[in-house]
Amino acid sequence: MSTITAPQLLEQLQWRYATKQFDPAQKISPSDWAALEESLVLTASSFGLQPWKFVVVTDPAQREKLVPVSWNQRQVADASHLVVFALKKNFSEADVAAYINRIVEVRGIPAAALAQYNDMMIGSLFKGRDAAARKVWAINQIYIALGNFLTSAALLGIDTCPMEGIDPARYDEILGLDALGLATVVVGVAGYRAATDKYASLKKVRFANPDVIVTL
Amino acid sequence: MSTITAPQLLEQLQWRYATKQFDPAQKISPSDWAALEESLVLTASSFGLQPWKFVVVTDPAQREKLVPVSWNQRQVADASHLVVFALKKNFSEADVAAYINRIVEVRGIPAAALAQYNDMMIGSLFKGRDAAARKVWAINQIYIALGNFLTSAALLGIDTCPMEGIDPARYDEILGLDALGLATVVVGVAGYRAATDKYASLKKVRFANPDVIVTL
Repeated sequence: MSTITAPQLLEQLQWRYATKQFDPAQKISPSDWAALEESLVLTASSFGLQPWKFVVVTDPAQREKLVPVSWNQRQVADASHLVVFALKKNFSEADVAAYINRIVEVRGIPAAALAQYNDMMIGSLFKGRDAAARKVWAINQIYIALGNFLTSAALLGIDTCPMEGIDPARYDEILGLDALGLATVVVGVAGYRAATDKYASLKKVRFANPDVIVTL
Repeated sequence: MSTITAPQLLEQLQWRYATKQFDPAQKISPSDWAALEESLVLTASSFGLQPWKFVVVTDPAQREKLVPVSWNQRQVADASHLVVFALKKNFSEADVAAYINRIVEVRGIPAAALAQYNDMMIGSLFKGRDAAARKVWAINQIYIALGNFLTSAALLGIDTCPMEGIDPARYDEILGLDALGLATVVVGVAGYRAATDKYASLKKVRFANPDVIVTL
């Protein structure tokens, strides 16, 4: 166990803010970036199905092309790293089968032992929902990953900005995601705040605890 | 800054799993619970609008009533704490106004300085979206909070289980959320794993990094 104290956690969550200006010269170290990728991989999801891929865009020219389809927000090009949180389009029973196979591989158990679990997933996702409802379900899981990403980065002292103000269809086009069977949901950028980012020093605005937490 | 190392972060994320059996005798300390509430309050959201409330159900009798509307999953009654992640129903321009007022209060700036920001929020949420699309938007934000909750708890050494397998309408009824202008989205329980929880020792199953992370 490598637990931290409550004050440590809260100090880092207070430190986090949606960074508007990144220092383009400051890059996340390869080891820290590997840890952030791993934290994404470790995100919890419904049934463990991981209906996502995380697309890390490293090519500077492509990142520049994304700026105009992101309301000209420069974070997209200036942050050290950019991740497109993408869903698997046409999520199908084959994806469930791939997951079952992965459980068999990782845990060394026979697929037959998972028959009931398989039926539960198929029932919930394919008998209980249509394609539109499955998409909503997948997007919900992707936002768990985004929440995990923001918090994990803050703990490592890495700045982030979650970005919904983008044109997902244009992202898909520019990055060729359609051919990969993916669709853009939301974007997260990570790096280090510029000394000039005036948002860094603004007081964080939250409704007061009694307006947010209801205790029954 | 109270940053942690990458190995520390990953150790806790590896330690985390969807706990099925909680030890009913082990309670989260008031100071740790206060920190988890505060971490929820500090969650990032679109425009900072916090379209949510977090409903902490402490009454054991009510928690028992929730079990049958949660596919009889005992975590709902046995975990130390239960949080209903709820959205503000009928999220309206008044909620945006309340947020603007809160910024004015916290940052000590005139509302007039926020006119452009206000217009941007109104444009995006009320001119650009209908009630159904606003609900989707709010639910997405709530899943950021869930992701933050799971990771924050893991860092503190607190077990959790995210629960979508519940009947939200019955939760609303039993807890009287409708009268509070709230609707159940998803549930998170927190506490400490029972020694008998066989899921605790199972190997975590994730697709291999190259199947999850796409680097362009």
